[in-house]
Amino acid sequence: MKREKLSSEEITARLGQLEGWSLAAGKLKRELQFPDFVGAFGFMTRAALVAERMNHHPEWSNVYGRVVIELTTHDAGGLTELDFALAKCMNELYG
Amino acid sequence: MKREKLSSEEITARLGQLEGWSLAAGKLKRELQFPDFVGAFGFMTRAALVAERMNHHPEWSNVYGRVVIELTTHDAGGLTELDFALAKCMNELYG
Repeated sequence: MKREKLSSEEITARLGQLEGWSLAAGKLKRELQFPDFVGAFGFMTRAALVAERMNHHPEWSNVYGRVVIELTTHDAGGLTELDFALAKCMNELYG
Repeated sequence: MKREKLSSEEITARLGQLEGWSLAAGKLKRELQFPDFVGAFGFMTRAALVAERMNHHPEWSNVYGRVVIELTTHDAGGLTELDFALAKCMNELYG
């Protein structure tokens, strides 16, 4: 998985194929709503295992059934393929 | 466990017996730092089980080894015994 910073054109192209995510302050962002805390934290637990396996971790917050996720690659100074790969995995878990 | 809003005097007294937490915008707040994501999310998982059992849930965020927690009781419009009880449990989990 490439850890090189993507260009604006590459980001736009990848965003077009990624449901539910938008750009916010240069990061990939998605807000998810679950019926309750168990639903939200259950999702986070599954996503945490995927993130750890990828060695690429989200910035995220949780309030009861709500989870807000932001993805970026700090050591690349922007978005990389890793962020889009993790976003896609999270969509599949949410799906 | 009482869900009644505590007075300023009651909050001050309880804060004096609670290590590591401060008041921020009327909420109980603590920031914890762990060596890595596994440490941070491991703590969150244990705390999530306690919170669910108490039926009282945190507002929290996580970036790699960092966890920021805010506690309040929304239906009481302020801090209650529940917030201090959950904070104490989290301190014990943090060790």
